[in-house]
Amino acid sequence: MSNEMNGAESLVHSLLLSGVDTCFANPGTSEMHFVAALDRIEGMRCVLGLFEGVVTGAADGYARIADKPAATLLHCGPGLANGLANLHNARRANTPIVNVIGDQATYHSDLDPPLASDTEGWAKPVSRWVRTTREARSVGIDAASAVQASLEGGGGIASLILPSDVCWDSGGLVAERRAPAPAARVEEKAVVMAADLLRAGGVSVLMLAGRALRAPQLAAAARIAAATGARLMTPSSNARVERGAGRHPVTRLPYPIDQALSALAGVENLILVGARAPVAFFAYPGKPGHLAPTTATIHTLARPDEDLADALDRLAELVGSGPVAAPGDARPELPGDADVTSRSVAGVLAAVLPEHAIVVDESISFGRDFFAGLEKAPAHDWLQLTGGAIGAGIPMAIGAAIAGKGRRVVNLQADGSGLYTAQALWTQARERLDVTTVILSNRKYAILLGEYAAVGAKPGRVARHMMTLDDPGIDWVRLGQSYGVESARAESLPRLADLLAASFRRTGPFLIELVIP
Amino acid sequence: MSNEMNGAESLVHSLLLSGVDTCFANPGTSEMHFVAALDRIEGMRCVLGLFEGVVTGAADGYARIADKPAATLLHCGPGLANGLANLHNARRANTPIVNVIGDQATYHSDLDPPLASDTEGWAKPVSRWVRTTREARSVGIDAASAVQASLEGGGGIASLILPSDVCWDSGGLVAERRAPAPAARVEEKAVVMAADLLRAGGVSVLMLAGRALRAPQLAAAARIAAATGARLMTPSSNARVERGAGRHPVTRLPYPIDQALSALAGVENLILVGARAPVAFFAYPGKPGHLAPTTATIHTLARPDEDLADALDRLAELVGSGPVAAPGDARPELPGDADVTSRSVAGVLAAVLPEHAIVVDESISFGRDFFAGLEKAPAHDWLQLTGGAIGAGIPMAIGAAIAGKGRRVVNLQADGSGLYTAQALWTQARERLDVTTVILSNRKYAILLGEYAAVGAKPGRVARHMMTLDDPGIDWVRLGQSYGVESARAESLPRLADLLAASFRRTGPFLIELVIP
Repeated sequence: MSNEMNGAESLVHSLLLSGVDTCFANPGTSEMHFVAALDRIEGMRCVLGLFEGVVTGAADGYARIADKPAATLLHCGPGLANGLANLHNARRANTPIVNVIGDQATYHSDLDPPLASDTEGWAKPVSRWVRTTREARSVGIDAASAVQASLEGGGGIASLILPSDVCWDSGGLVAERRAPAPAARVEEKAVVMAADLLRAGGVSVLMLAGRALRAPQLAAAARIAAATGARLMTPSSNARVERGAGRHPVTRLPYPIDQALSALAGVENLILVGARAPVAFFAYPGKPGHLAPTTATIHTLARPDEDLADALDRLAELVGSGPVAAPGDARPELPGDADVTSRSVAGVLAAVLPEHAIVVDESISFGRDFFAGLEKAPAHDWLQLTGGAIGAGIPMAIGAAIAGKGRRVVNLQADGSGLYTAQALWTQARERLDVTTVILSNRKYAILLGEYAAVGAKPGRVARHMMTLDDPGIDWVRLGQSYGVESARAESLPRLADLLAASFRRTGPFLIELVIP
Repeated sequence: MSNEMNGAESLVHSLLLSGVDTCFANPGTSEMHFVAALDRIEGMRCVLGLFEGVVTGAADGYARIADKPAATLLHCGPGLANGLANLHNARRANTPIVNVIGDQATYHSDLDPPLASDTEGWAKPVSRWVRTTREARSVGIDAASAVQASLEGGGGIASLILPSDVCWDSGGLVAERRAPAPAARVEEKAVVMAADLLRAGGVSVLMLAGRALRAPQLAAAARIAAATGARLMTPSSNARVERGAGRHPVTRLPYPIDQALSALAGVENLILVGARAPVAFFAYPGKPGHLAPTTATIHTLARPDEDLADALDRLAELVGSGPVAAPGDARPELPGDADVTSRSVAGVLAAVLPEHAIVVDESISFGRDFFAGLEKAPAHDWLQLTGGAIGAGIPMAIGAAIAGKGRRVVNLQADGSGLYTAQALWTQARERLDVTTVILSNRKYAILLGEYAAVGAKPGRVARHMMTLDDPGIDWVRLGQSYGVESARAESLPRLADLLAASFRRTGPFLIELVIP
C-alpha cells in the first residue's frame, strides 16, 4: 500500500480486510472523502437509504442473517440521532454493527458550527465501543478495532467517529481485525446444576434466546425436553429464530402481561440459555415486574456471550437423551374465504410461504397468532422487533434480503409502525430486493387502544384523535408506488393468497395492503 | 383542585396555567395516563404526528410564530431519539419547546425492560434544562419549571422525563410558571463602542440574528445603516425574518464558503447583534473556519439572550438618524414561460405570494436565489433550517400553520430533505392546515454533488449511486395523495403559478411537485 493513502482510503481497505463488505449509507458533506474512496476501491457494496433510520435498521437485518457486521455511513450527530431508534433495537438483539460517523474536522468543531453536536454522547447509550479518531494514521487500526469490538461479547454496536480531516489527510495505514475469540465455555457446575434441577422434577422451562434459537441448538434443547419433560420457550421478541419444517418448535412468551404471567404460572425451574429472566415490557399498577413466579428457581445455564451450543450439547448428554426427530413438512392447506383475522392470515401465510423465506415480523397487535400459526410452514427464519422502538420492519427487510442472497423476505408490517420509516421501500425498489411487504392496515394504533382500555378509560375525543389513523386513511398502494414498489390491495384471504403467490414468482419488491376490517 | 388529582392531570393543568395550550404528540404505552388526562381536561390542542421527527419539527415551527412554547409528547428514549434531529435545529434557533417524555416506571427501569435506554443522556445535548420527576406531587412544579426554563436565556429546550408511575399516582399539585424575567439590557459601553466603530468609518457590517430580525428591530437597524453606511446582514440560516413590503431588507450571508468569504471580504468592523461571529458550516482543506477577515474588529453589541430591540434603539439614537422609510409594495409581475431556475421560480413566488404568508425554507441548493428573489413580495415571515439537520421543512410547516391561525404557509422543500419526514404531510391533511408545499424535485442530493466536485473528483459509479434519487424517481404526487394531501405536478412556470394560486384560494394543504430539469 502506498504511503500516500488518505485516511478515508485506509478506512475502506481496513473494513474490507476485516470482512465488512456491505455499507448502508446516507452520506453528507463530511463523508465526501469516504465516498470518493469507495469510488476508487473495489469490493464494498454501498446501499443508499433516504433516512438514517433506514440505514441502521437495514444494518440490523443484514447482520442477523449474515452473522457478520455491515458498516453504516452516517452524517454528524443529527444523522446518528436519526438512526438511534433502530440502533437501540439492534443493541437489544446483540447485532454486530460498525457505525462510521463523519463529523466536523478536529480543528473546526471548537467553532461550534451549526451541525456540531455531542456525537459521542448520543452514540454511547447504544454502543459497546465508541472512538473518535484524531489523526489519519489511526483510521485503519480504529476501523479494525471497531469490527473486532462489534463481534465480541455476544455481538454489539461499535461507533467510529471520523472528523473530516482525518479522512482527507494522507498517512492512512491499513489494518485487519484479529481472529475472533471463541465464545467462553460455561463452567461444568452450571451444566450439572441445570441437569439436577431438571431431574428433580417439577415444572421446568428452558428459556432460549440468541444463538440458542438456531436449528442445531434447538435440536439439542429438544433432546433435553424429551429426556426431562422441560418446556422450551423464548422471550417475546427475538433477533432470529430458525423454525418451520425440519426444525424443533419453541413456544414464545406472549407480550400482554396477563398472558405472560399465565404462561409462566406454576413454573418451578426456569433455566436461562442466553436469555435474561423475563420482565414485563412496561410496569402496570399492581402487577409484578418479574414475570416468573417468585417461588421459581432461576438458573443461568449460559449467558448471551457464552457458548450456548456447547452448553446445550453438554446438558443434553448429561440428561441422557438421543436425537429427537423434528416435525416434517406439514404445510397446511389454504383456509379459503374466511374472515380476515390474525389466525386466518397466519393460515394463508403458512400455506404459501416459500422454502427458506425470511420473515421480518413487526406485526405488533394484529400479529399475535402469526408466530404459532406459521410453525408448520416450510423452514424459515423469523426476525422480530427486539427493542420496542417501532419502525424497524421495512428497513430490516432490506438488510435481510441483501444478506439472504435470493431468499424471499416477507415483512409482516403493522401500519402505524411502518409509517415511521416507509421511505425504506424506495431502497427495496432501487436495489431490486425480493421483499414482499404485507401492510396490516387497521388504521389505528391498536396496541395503544388496548393499553388505554387497560388504564380503565373509554377513549374520548382526544384519545381517539391520538390513536386512530383513519382521518384521512393512508393509501398504502399509492405510498408504495410513489417509492417505485409495485403495490396492490387485498380485502379478502383469497386475494391475499393470490397476491402473495404472485409476488413470490417475480423478482424485486412487492407491497400488499391488507385491509383489516 | 382535588387532592385526588393524579400526576398526569396536574401536568395538563400546570402546562395550561403556564400558557402552553398546544401539544404535538406521538404517544406510547407509558403516556396513556397523560392521554387520559387530556381527555378529561379541556383546553389543550393535541396534534398527532406519525413520527417523532414530525412532532419536534412542528413544535419548532409553532414557537417561531407563536413566540411561546408548545409541548411535545414523546415515548421513552427511542421516541425522543427520533425527534433529536429537529430538536437540534430548534436549539440552534433558540426555540422554546417543552418536551414531555414518558418513560419506564421509577421502580421498573432497574429491570432493564426492552425499551429502557438512557433518556436523560440523549436529551442533554439539545436541552438547556432536563429533569426526571420522581413522584406525583412534583409533576406540576416540574412542568411549570420546564415552561419557565424554555423561555429563559433567549429561548431553548426543556425536557421533562416522566416515569409512568408519577403520572398514575395520585397527589398531583398544580403549579404555574413565574412571570418571565425581561431580557437583560446591554451595558452602555457596548453601545458606545459600536457607535464609535461605526463613526470611525471603514467598511462596517451589522450582523443581525434572532429577535433583531423582527420588523421593528430591522427598522432601527435601517436607521443605523442610513446614518453610518453600515451594511445589514444576517447569518446564512435564521429562525425567523420579518420581511417583504413595508419591512427593511437585510442581506443574507451565502452558504457556499467561497461566496461567504467574498461577501465579508474587506469588512473592517463586524458588529454582532444577537449573532455569533460567522463560521464555515464545514471545514475545507486550506480554507479558513472564521468567515470574517482576520483583520476585522469584531464587537458584540448584544448577545442572543440580551434585549436586542433596546440595544438597536439606543445605538440608532446615538448615531443620530431619524426614521427611514421601508420599501413599499413593489410586487413583481409573473415572469412568463421562462426556464425553471432558482431565480425564475423566486419570481413566480414573489408575484403570487399572499399577504402575511409564512415561508418555510428548506430549499437547500436549488433555493439559492429564493431569499433575495422574494424581497419585493408582500410582507411575510421567512423560517429556515437552522441546524443543518435536514427533514425540518414539512414538520415546521405544521406548527407554523397552527400558530399562524389562517396565515398561508408556503414550504419550499428540497426533495431529498423532504423524504426524511414526508409522513408529516398526513398531519397537514388531518388538521386541514393551509400549507402549500412546493417540492423542488431534482431527484438528487444536489448539494452533495457540489461538495463532491469541491473534493476534486468526478463522481464514479458508487458516488452517483449514493447521491442520485432517480432510480427509481420518487412520485411526489402519489406520495402526497397517499397521505391525503391533494397534489399535482408542475413542469413549467405558468403551471407552477396556476397551481400556487389555486392552492391559495382553497383551504387545507396542497402539494406541488415542481420538476427541476
